[in-house]
Amino acid sequence: MNSRHTYSFNTGDGKNKALLGGKGANLCEMTQMGLNVPPGFVISTETCLSYLQQNSLPAGLMDEVRRQIAGIEELTGRQFGGNSDPLLVSVRSGAAISMPGMMATILNLGLNKQTLAGLIEMTDDPRFAYDAYRRFIQMFGKVALGIDDEKFDVHFNTVKRNAGIKADVALSSDQLQEISELFLKVVHEETARPFPEDVYDQLELAIKAVFLSWQSHKAVAYRRAFNITPKIANGTAVNIVTMVFGNMGDDCATGVGFTRNPGTGENEIYGEYLVNAQGEDVVAGIRTPKPVQEMRSEMPEQYRQLQNLRHKLEAYYREIQDFEFTIERGVLYCLQTRNGKMNAAAMVKTSIDMVAEELIDKPRALLRINPESLEQLLHPQLGLHHNRQPLAQGLPASPGAASGKCVFDADTAVRLAKTGADIILLREETKPEDIHGFFAAQGILTSRGGKTSHAAVVARGMGKACVAGAEDIHIDVRSRLAIVGDIHIKEGDPITIDGSSGNIYLGRIPTIPSSFSEELKTLLAWADSVARLRIYANVDTPETARLAIGYGAKGIGLCRTERMFNACDRLPLVIDMILANSTDERETALAKLFPIQRDDFQTLFEAMAPHPVTVRLLDPPMHEFLPSEHQLLEELEALRHYLTIVKGRRIAMETFNRPCELPAPFNQLGKEVIMEAIAKKELMLAKVLELYEVNPMLGHRGVRLGMSYPEIYKMQIRSILEAAARCLKQRIQIEPEIMVPQVITAQELKKVKEMVEQIRAEVEDQYRLKLDFKFGTMIETVRACTRADRLAEIAHFFSFGTNDLTQAVFSFSREDAENKFLPLYKESGILEDNPFENLDIRGLGKLMKMAVDLGREQRPDLRIGICGEHGGHPRSIRFCHNLGLDYVSCSAPRIPVARLAAAHAKLLEGQSL
Amino acid sequence: MNSRHTYSFNTGDGKNKALLGGKGANLCEMTQMGLNVPPGFVISTETCLSYLQQNSLPAGLMDEVRRQIAGIEELTGRQFGGNSDPLLVSVRSGAAISMPGMMATILNLGLNKQTLAGLIEMTDDPRFAYDAYRRFIQMFGKVALGIDDEKFDVHFNTVKRNAGIKADVALSSDQLQEISELFLKVVHEETARPFPEDVYDQLELAIKAVFLSWQSHKAVAYRRAFNITPKIANGTAVNIVTMVFGNMGDDCATGVGFTRNPGTGENEIYGEYLVNAQGEDVVAGIRTPKPVQEMRSEMPEQYRQLQNLRHKLEAYYREIQDFEFTIERGVLYCLQTRNGKMNAAAMVKTSIDMVAEELIDKPRALLRINPESLEQLLHPQLGLHHNRQPLAQGLPASPGAASGKCVFDADTAVRLAKTGADIILLREETKPEDIHGFFAAQGILTSRGGKTSHAAVVARGMGKACVAGAEDIHIDVRSRLAIVGDIHIKEGDPITIDGSSGNIYLGRIPTIPSSFSEELKTLLAWADSVARLRIYANVDTPETARLAIGYGAKGIGLCRTERMFNACDRLPLVIDMILANSTDERETALAKLFPIQRDDFQTLFEAMAPHPVTVRLLDPPMHEFLPSEHQLLEELEALRHYLTIVKGRRIAMETFNRPCELPAPFNQLGKEVIMEAIAKKELMLAKVLELYEVNPMLGHRGVRLGMSYPEIYKMQIRSILEAAARCLKQRIQIEPEIMVPQVITAQELKKVKEMVEQIRAEVEDQYRLKLDFKFGTMIETVRACTRADRLAEIAHFFSFGTNDLTQAVFSFSREDAENKFLPLYKESGILEDNPFENLDIRGLGKLMKMAVDLGREQRPDLRIGICGEHGGHPRSIRFCHNLGLDYVSCSAPRIPVARLAAAHAKLLEGQSL
Repeated sequence: MNSRHTYSFNTGDGKNKALLGGKGANLCEMTQMGLNVPPGFVISTETCLSYLQQNSLPAGLMDEVRRQIAGIEELTGRQFGGNSDPLLVSVRSGAAISMPGMMATILNLGLNKQTLAGLIEMTDDPRFAYDAYRRFIQMFGKVALGIDDEKFDVHFNTVKRNAGIKADVALSSDQLQEISELFLKVVHEETARPFPEDVYDQLELAIKAVFLSWQSHKAVAYRRAFNITPKIANGTAVNIVTMVFGNMGDDCATGVGFTRNPGTGENEIYGEYLVNAQGEDVVAGIRTPKPVQEMRSEMPEQYRQLQNLRHKLEAYYREIQDFEFTIERGVLYCLQTRNGKMNAAAMVKTSIDMVAEELIDKPRALLRINPESLEQLLHPQLGLHHNRQPLAQGLPASPGAASGKCVFDADTAVRLAKTGADIILLREETKPEDIHGFFAAQGILTSRGGKTSHAAVVARGMGKACVAGAEDIHIDVRSRLAIVGDIHIKEGDPITIDGSSGNIYLGRIPTIPSSFSEELKTLLAWADSVARLRIYANVDTPETARLAIGYGAKGIGLCRTERMFNACDRLPLVIDMILANSTDERETALAKLFPIQRDDFQTLFEAMAPHPVTVRLLDPPMHEFLPSEHQLLEELEALRHYLTIVKGRRIAMETFNRPCELPAPFNQLGKEVIMEAIAKKELMLAKVLELYEVNPMLGHRGVRLGMSYPEIYKMQIRSILEAAARCLKQRIQIEPEIMVPQVITAQELKKVKEMVEQIRAEVEDQYRLKLDFKFGTMIETVRACTRADRLAEIAHFFSFGTNDLTQAVFSFSREDAENKFLPLYKESGILEDNPFENLDIRGLGKLMKMAVDLGREQRPDLRIGICGEHGGHPRSIRFCHNLGLDYVSCSAPRIPVARLAAAHAKLLEGQSL
Repeated sequence: MNSRHTYSFNTGDGKNKALLGGKGANLCEMTQMGLNVPPGFVISTETCLSYLQQNSLPAGLMDEVRRQIAGIEELTGRQFGGNSDPLLVSVRSGAAISMPGMMATILNLGLNKQTLAGLIEMTDDPRFAYDAYRRFIQMFGKVALGIDDEKFDVHFNTVKRNAGIKADVALSSDQLQEISELFLKVVHEETARPFPEDVYDQLELAIKAVFLSWQSHKAVAYRRAFNITPKIANGTAVNIVTMVFGNMGDDCATGVGFTRNPGTGENEIYGEYLVNAQGEDVVAGIRTPKPVQEMRSEMPEQYRQLQNLRHKLEAYYREIQDFEFTIERGVLYCLQTRNGKMNAAAMVKTSIDMVAEELIDKPRALLRINPESLEQLLHPQLGLHHNRQPLAQGLPASPGAASGKCVFDADTAVRLAKTGADIILLREETKPEDIHGFFAAQGILTSRGGKTSHAAVVARGMGKACVAGAEDIHIDVRSRLAIVGDIHIKEGDPITIDGSSGNIYLGRIPTIPSSFSEELKTLLAWADSVARLRIYANVDTPETARLAIGYGAKGIGLCRTERMFNACDRLPLVIDMILANSTDERETALAKLFPIQRDDFQTLFEAMAPHPVTVRLLDPPMHEFLPSEHQLLEELEALRHYLTIVKGRRIAMETFNRPCELPAPFNQLGKEVIMEAIAKKELMLAKVLELYEVNPMLGHRGVRLGMSYPEIYKMQIRSILEAAARCLKQRIQIEPEIMVPQVITAQELKKVKEMVEQIRAEVEDQYRLKLDFKFGTMIETVRACTRADRLAEIAHFFSFGTNDLTQAVFSFSREDAENKFLPLYKESGILEDNPFENLDIRGLGKLMKMAVDLGREQRPDLRIGICGEHGGHPRSIRFCHNLGLDYVSCSAPRIPVARLAAAHAKLLEGQSL
């Protein structure tokens, strides 16, 4: 406990928020850096605690206060309680942490009958003076004396009513005087004493009131709600500041400013001001403020002061500032300043500029930008002033805005897209088989599923806009309608979706295209030179691979081979493979798939050369490639119906969700063709029932498929290795890697490794060359974490699949949890975050650490990365950095975010997460 | 490397199997304990390795061999290669680990023209001698000289054919002589040398042949298949033993014996013998052996020797022995002995007897019994000689045999059981709603699901026989038929199932009832006094609680409250509760359930008093209490059909799987009643669709329900605490415990704890007493393991739910894995065990250790147990003991197993698992 209670703005320690509160410290700091701040002083938070404990002000406090007031009097040449040119002060609370509106404030303190007269004389504006007076009486009455607002309001309203006046501003000086006198009576009646005329009495009461407000019901509740413990903020300081007025005449003004343009980042002053006005006039919106640039002609000297202020602020804070100012009788005062909020583009530009101006260094330029904000730079945005009301809202599942024609299935999307139309694909939910529709569409809208549903994950991977789980929209594929209340949206009708907000609009709304500016490129190059983590992309096609390279990916950390299975020309082959009843039949189907996959890999390797490409072997359960039981039953019913009526007539292909499987052309369907289709559908139905799983997430998938049907994995391995061999033949430098999913034991890896080695020998023989590639494993089961030492005996690299790992660690099915109980869990604070969005460091993180430690113990040069969704999230990236991972792999549009976050991780090393 | 190569039976170290092989060490041991073993010696495994390495016998070996043979000659008074009374020996392989049939053996070595004459003279039995001779030539020719059996067999068969003889035993002495001469010719032709006449040449060749057989193709393959590494067995020893013959006359015999009756454990000699016979005569089955008791009159002196042998064996081995003997000219030789295999009842009885006889101490009495074997004592078994062929086979899901009438739904089972009929419940698979059918039935048979399916788990919990996943049986509930191929089994037809083997039989087969003998009780009491782990039961009803107490349970470690929800009088209330659309509606339904649950708990507490009863709050997802979508659609279709035809006629209630929900009586159904039923079913259908989950295992269940619908948990908590209060009022001493399932974070526990504390205060107030109970958590999610320190701040106890934990650690859905890929994983050695049966110590075990360490760090007196299925498995119990757990909880019939296993765990502390 300091023996001193008060600190003038000239002497208080601007960094000591704990002692002086946030506002007080800020005022001290501003004063000491030479800004023109109205003189004042701070009573410390310690004094507050002492008062609350002792229930009386510490001895000597009021003496100190008098000395401080004397100091202000000297600085301002005014006198507290003086007859002419009286000193008025504000008395404000200010804790170490801002608690807006929670505690007491009193303005215009120091007014009494005498000083009022002095004020009138000084300003020659009785209306101004009485307005200030009546406000002070009510505020003081309420805050310091505990009188209900209502007691004052009743008189105020009576005067207004009697005068036939609606707006407060219409009240005349006389009416305000009448009100002031009525208010003084109220105080006398309610407190059985006259209103305190002695200004130090006023001040003492006000100080006590501010102290007590720390323990008011609402302040206590606020601290509890925001978890503000005594360690974070303990007690409030009291700030006593000279009142300055922007409304004392035409040499007065009030305004707000930014040191640079927060919309563009341009290095120019930006802001608005009003002559002869108070701050609240700006808020009330009665007068329209002018851009500060107009001050240059209207108030040239003050404009110079303002520019001077701007430079001082930036030189001191080394950050764009958002400040408030008042001009009283030609003198500019700075009342408050804080870091300016800007959009991402402006943040990037100012970072680059400030480094060029040598205002900040590169680490600071990187650290001042929130990595998350960069994603908005990569997607088209809705124009700001479209003024449309959203038709419905879903979850903002993949950022960006898109307009286009509604389409209800992937095949139609592909067909219409070929005509050059923009498409929005609407589905209840999407499945892997819809993937060609994603490519064709500008945006995806689903009525079911969460932010990590198939639609959301795939759309994010492709950088397409997606709104998911818009439950108010009923999507009726059969009748080709989307229904919201009374509104029916037909196929072909235009809509707009905003994947950044989740809003859905009828009709088209113009969008602002994305920008990957030179400044952003420069900034990210700085980030790369700082970061230790490498950034890879989760990418499945040559197109997105090129996009990822453009964004700065240094490799592919995850290529999901199954995504290649879903194109229209492949799916029938995949289905044949699944329907196969013997290894022989399956191998026949696989033989057809083989050249397609090989060519896919070759194109991908070429696109990414010379960077590494990590190919994951087949992961999803086989039933994911088949339609649902429900859908097959419907299609069979329809086919059987057509069988009874077919006579060369056209069959409505709209009946089928996936007409690409049906024999074409439909208008020439003969009986035999339909019967064949029925037989095929029946086979598919039988297979669907055979493959049914209670918990597909924990089912027959990943390497388990590779163990049951080694011929599938062998086909994929051969595709990868032959693709690699073909690249080598063309002297393209590549780095292929084979990755095994869902591994739980080294035995699985060993068996896949045996396949790989056998096929490697065959391919090397066939192409007469030596192949060089890595073999590794996903770490996405809990058991893999616990057995990482054994896995590292075989694997060259690990890649954490934190999506699946999170499900296993929490025993949460992602699809179910996000629809059923996760919202409640977050709301009620059972979980701080959605663990599918924010990596669960305290639980899952322990397992990751176990895996890293065990793995590196076995193989010190083991390369370790992460390819779950978390790989693109800054906090998770920091954790991965601290854990010693080598790379993170994320969807293409997250790459800039990840590059910056990786630099942050390095710069913030050692600081707690 | 020892400089010595050979060890006579008198001097070899009977414990050194690595050096002398298993058989050689056994022969040394028997000799040195004073048994009459035919004299002989062993050539060490080291010598074998040296030979294989150098490709020549070590210098001096054959000299040593000659000295050993000289020793035998002295002991037997016979001469190796002698003219009269010749010494014949067997030359056998014998590695440290028995590899039956894998390596070489030669009998009757030492025969040549000279010694043959001597043998004829000595035995006066030329047929015997020639038979021995021709066998020796062929065996030696094959093993030592590498001649194909076929070369000999062709001559043998020609002689037989020419003589018109079918059976070998019918060959005369002359014919055998002719064969011998032909065989000698074969050897000469094949090796271009005459058959070796010098007996030491014979011996040297035989020794080399045995050594080489260690590296034969089949021996190498065997070692690879059974994972016999050089560390376990390296090289084979050679055993050279004097031949003794049980077929030299009527003072000769051969036989096998047990030192006690292996069927009953009675302390009496048990065995069979044949006079004037060879061991292979017993095997050939041409003559019927006599019980050894007959020797008492037939060969009194030899019977005395036999009794003497029995006592010596038991005194030495302190274990029941299974031995082979031969009597040659009135002298009994013991050729081999090993521990006797007995059924569980006999094991228990002999343990008790041997302790009484002071032959063994109690630890040894406990350790000699395999805990697993005790379960067979608790279940009825099929009579051994029923000779029926099984109709089909499923998985042995819950042990014991049961016969009864086929029934296809739980309600009918209950109805028929009331008439006194025995019931076997047949279902495709069971759901919790079938639970009343389990109580009514003697056994359960399902056509789908694995050993840990609902049917299996529940049946084991109740100690009822269950065969699960009998996929060859098609169960058609609608037509009330079970179909296997052409066979149609109607409702009411009798069948028998054997849950120990998985077999299913048509008709009834008598069963042998279970026995929980006094001896078993004594043994388990000894076990309890040794064990540190306490044994609790997983039990849900007062009946099974009483059963568990009878088996020795010291508490209930898991009472699944949802099991109480499924009785016919409760399910409709539960369904109302689920259909409720508001908290109010739900509370109304819960208010009806409340007194039922309270009374359930009271009865259970009373049944278990004064032992602890751990009640787990509701765990399964709500949709488990509703019928499937499929079933509801069918029922609705039927109801709608009836609506069109109903005119007071009886409706076939068989249409409904669960008629108990429908309004009754059916024969008076009016239109309104049916419409009401339709409305209800439609509501249920809508709810089923609403509650649908992609992965129910990872869905809205456990404490997540408690968070979403606190009113359900509150009702259960109040039921438990009021039941406790009522017991206390009656001065019944009880120990109630409340356990929360599926916990992932301390926040969940905190919230449930708040409910508990609030209700505790209310109940204490209402009943005017103080309640004393524990509050704890299941550890069945991975995250709970990683956050165990935080959980232990709130929980008094942990209980590992290793079923769910295994699913999460492996990312295996139990139901899917056991049907789809686990069998392959076990067959191909990817996993050593089914982790749902054998706790995965290397993976899951690490997490358990983490949880125990973190939990006890926070709360040193934290009580920790396990209530997964693994809690009843000996190896898992040893692991739990080593981990420092306090108790294991298992299904009632596993309690004896667990009690013994807990004693083993203590006795084997420090030994590797």
